Amino acid sequence: MEEKIEAHYKFFQRQIRDILPKKTTLIVVDMQKYQVQKDYIAYKAMDTVTPGILDYFVSEVEQKVTPNLRKLINFCHEVGIPVIYTKFSSFMPDGSDLSKGGKNLNKIAKNLLGDVAFPHISHPSSDIIDELKPEDRDFVIQKNTSGTFMSTRLDSFLKNMDIETVLVSGVVTNFCVESTAREAGDYGFQVVIVEDCCAAWSPEIHQATLKSFGLLRGFILTHEKVIKKLLKQIK
Amino acid sequence: MEEKIEAHYKFFQRQIRDILPKKTTLIVVDMQKYQVQKDYIAYKAMDTVTPGILDYFVSEVEQKVTPNLRKLINFCHEVGIPVIYTKFSSFMPDGSDLSKGGKNLNKIAKNLLGDVAFPHISHPSSDIIDELKPEDRDFVIQKNTSGTFMSTRLDSFLKNMDIETVLVSGVVTNFCVESTAREAGDYGFQVVIVEDCCAAWSPEIHQATLKSFGLLRGFILTHEKVIKKLLKQIK
Amino acid sequence: MEEKIEAHYKFFQRQIRDILPKKTTLIVVDMQKYQVQKDYIAYKAMDTVTPGILDYFVSEVEQKVTPNLRKLINFCHEVGIPVIYTKFSSFMPDGSDLSKGGKNLNKIAKNLLGDVAFPHISHPSSDIIDELKPEDRDFVIQKNTSGTFMSTRLDSFLKNMDIETVLVSGVVTNFCVESTAREAGDYGFQVVIVEDCCAAWSPEIHQATLKSFGLLRGFILTHEKVIKKLLKQIK
Amino acid sequence: MEEKIEAHYKFFQRQIRDILPKKTTLIVVDMQKYQVQKDYIAYKAMDTVTPGILDYFVSEVEQKVTPNLRKLINFCHEVGIPVIYTKFSSFMPDGSDLSKGGKNLNKIAKNLLGDVAFPHISHPSSDIIDELKPEDRDFVIQKNTSGTFMSTRLDSFLKNMDIETVLVSGVVTNFCVESTAREAGDYGFQVVIVEDCCAAWSPEIHQATLKSFGLLRGFILTHEKVIKKLLKQIK
Repeated sequence: MEEKIEAHYKFFQRQIRDILPKKTTLIVVDMQKYQVQKDYIAYKAMDTVTPGILDYFVSEVEQKVTPNLRKLINFCHEVGIPVIYTKFSSFMPDGSDLSKGGKNLNKIAKNLLGDVAFPHISHPSSDIIDELKPEDRDFVIQKNTSGTFMSTRLDSFLKNMDIETVLVSGVVTNFCVESTAREAGDYGFQVVIVEDCCAAWSPEIHQATLKSFGLLRGFILTHEKVIKKLLKQIK
Repeated sequence: MEEKIEAHYKFFQRQIRDILPKKTTLIVVDMQKYQVQKDYIAYKAMDTVTPGILDYFVSEVEQKVTPNLRKLINFCHEVGIPVIYTKFSSFMPDGSDLSKGGKNLNKIAKNLLGDVAFPHISHPSSDIIDELKPEDRDFVIQKNTSGTFMSTRLDSFLKNMDIETVLVSGVVTNFCVESTAREAGDYGFQVVIVEDCCAAWSPEIHQATLKSFGLLRGFILTHEKVIKKLLKQIK
Repeated sequence: MEEKIEAHYKFFQRQIRDILPKKTTLIVVDMQKYQVQKDYIAYKAMDTVTPGILDYFVSEVEQKVTPNLRKLINFCHEVGIPVIYTKFSSFMPDGSDLSKGGKNLNKIAKNLLGDVAFPHISHPSSDIIDELKPEDRDFVIQKNTSGTFMSTRLDSFLKNMDIETVLVSGVVTNFCVESTAREAGDYGFQVVIVEDCCAAWSPEIHQATLKSFGLLRGFILTHEKVIKKLLKQIK
Repeated sequence: MEEKIEAHYKFFQRQIRDILPKKTTLIVVDMQKYQVQKDYIAYKAMDTVTPGILDYFVSEVEQKVTPNLRKLINFCHEVGIPVIYTKFSSFMPDGSDLSKGGKNLNKIAKNLLGDVAFPHISHPSSDIIDELKPEDRDFVIQKNTSGTFMSTRLDSFLKNMDIETVLVSGVVTNFCVESTAREAGDYGFQVVIVEDCCAAWSPEIHQATLKSFGLLRGFILTHEKVIKKLLKQIK
């Protein structure tokens, strides 16, 4: 069976259409301090429940995702591709706007460590990490769900902006990144998950997610291949 | 005919259910500097096209809407009712996320006066007016459409917050206020338009809007009656 | 004041862009038997509450809206413009999917007359009236809210179909028609309310709605002018 | 790493809350003839591209998914839990309402075999399979995207119906089922994927999907365990 799956994956990946710089955007999902660094409740609560569960992830973000994303964002800035940062936080100071799932994770964290896992939007831990700090020309959008489109109307904005291809990056591959990528595909955008600009809790989960998505839903490319494809359209 | 309409209006208004403070929110629509003050492009462009078109509106906001809203917001703060401010602005610095209608109004303003009508979210003219300045406990939500729910997922947040009744106030009665009120009703909330906390370009349009909405879609109350109804539930 | 309003209305109406047949759709809102005929609970309940309240409306639909819409739909069929019929009904047999507002109106009707006002989608009273019966090439979309976009994702479908202009017709001018028109505008479509293809409970409400909408939100044309504008693009 | 992942999975699965029959619904995703049987274009096109790619899936549906779902649907009918069937089809006769992804798959199928992969809603191949044929009391909802909520407003309907837990079943595990489950979670529902009532193209993909989802997003139970949990609340 695995051979057939592999063959079909390759067939589907060849269906990619041109990536036109003027009709492309890069979404950087949840590269917030509390999501990827060890100093915050989210990490600590997870680590209390299952010691070491996020160690691979945190190191992967630091060594692979962040430097690769830095390069990809720089390139997008150079060629005028809009960069959209998402932030997963509560809108209401008391977190009451979060879904039941979010509230439950907050409650677990509070019981374990005395504070919530998902901070309010104004809390410094909700900021994008310093290495990828948004500039004035970027667009930072606030969401309170795993998928980006689920708690925003980004679909409408992207249609207004005449976007055709959405590059998805950030964390976590099989949670917010995959949900965002699935939604973008359903809204009619060509979707590329930039595989070396995202990370999961284990390499197996990361790979399984890309394999599943790349079978029928969208495309999987490294940041270097994305840049190459974009450059081909510019010259 | 008008008598029957009047009779039906009265019948429908009597259908109002209790307004429970713990299940109520106040939405303050677009009380932004550029929306209600004469110093900004939006006013100036309109005034160039049709001299004096906004004079009644601006004065009504200053003398009636703002002081009444100040009282209503104070009351909500006192009894713990969440206050949600909306801001109508573009998300992208170049306004590319606006709908075609918004872009057209921007273009008209630019042709007339050299700048856009709808500012970017970070522009100071997009701020809420000083008299109603949001506090940390309030929730400020950014939208780029006339209706609030159309460019946000506020419906989901309000459901998560267990809200049943939505009080709608702000400007302009027959544009963003009415659209927001209609959407809230369709999402299943009991809706009250606080009639002396909003204003239109003319008293006739203001009244016609309330009459139309109050026939079948929701309730029309002054801020004093709203406070009275809420107080009845508290004691 | 009324002169300035009138002047501004005329200014805004001149901003209409071309209506391209390949990028246009006609939405026919709620022309269902139970909405416009006297034999059904909706009419009877209203008439019990306020005798005669719908008499003007029912006659207006019969004498003006239906024949005009018949002509406009015929024209759309001839030139290949998609016709989208909406039906306002409950999805669940027990009406549990309706909003609180819808449930309340159902309850009032049930108390008065023993049956609900808004029928289930499979009930014959939910059918489009015989004079305008949809054909196989038409698209019939089911909604359970006043606004069409509020309980469907028609916005996405229209974007997929490359639609730019939405013609809105049907009933009731200031309820489902206006909500649908407002939503379509917020989603970025150019909106035309076909004024002689819709009706309200009184001529005053009908006119006030068109005047309010036409000031800033969209365009008001008769079906003959719409056809003329479309024909200009074809030849 | 895999041990920690396994430990965390078990921790999260223990967080399940009660499943209350009155606040639960069963979503049966895309159990349509053309999706699960060999006689239709969708299967044939896939089989032409990658011979045998769907053989495991078709057999799994026949031998496992269909009989298990039959039992679960029967149980839901007995205890009054609403059953919601989704159908993935185009709304417009020419498929123009489908997303770009859907249109592309249609084009590939048409090139290979002369007809589209995703049929129009009125085409018999779009019907639910005979073994699970919906009854009058069921709710059949039409969508044109992978996720159910993405092209409907089922979230609003379920909120109106006071639903708290959504059971997700049907096909394909990592496509429409997973998208639907992710969306339901983001909308604040407790989500259970009924693992032996869905199938993927390979057992590995099926398992990887459940493992990823069950780590943080929702719960994974067999239909027998679901029934047991529901029965516990009834007695």
